[in-house]
Amino acid sequence: MSETTYVVKGMTCGHCIRAVTTEVEQVSGVEAVRIDLAGATVTVTGTGFTDEQIKGAVVEAGYEFGGTAAA
Amino acid sequence: MSETTYVVKGMTCGHCIRAVTTEVEQVSGVEAVRIDLAGATVTVTGTGFTDEQIKGAVVEAGYEFGGTAAA
Repeated sequence: MSETTYVVKGMTCGHCIRAVTTEVEQVSGVEAVRIDLAGATVTVTGTGFTDEQIKGAVVEAGYEFGGTAAA
Repeated sequence: MSETTYVVKGMTCGHCIRAVTTEVEQVSGVEAVRIDLAGATVTVTGTGFTDEQIKGAVVEAGYEFGGTAAA
């Protein structure tokens, strides 16, 4: 089980949270998605997912993927 | 046919625009809904709708109704 935090730009409201959560949850291996709207980050917990898969889900939801967040 | 502009607070993104538009379009007599996100206004065109009905639709969508905008 790993936890990775990504920077995601453009999320502004509850609808955005739901849109990103829904897409990221569909990535194989993802078990939990936590979004910090003010911090513009998405924290993903699970096993076996890749950064590229999360990027794909974020872009599919319509937001800008900014890579992994600084620890 | 009349056109009235209302102040609506809390709209931040395209999802918000769709949520408000969908609710306001359901008010009887409404023919068109135009939203200015930056200006926080919703302009409604149609016949026979009342301010109270528009307020109800805005609140139903989950946003704060601020009354009619200054001309």
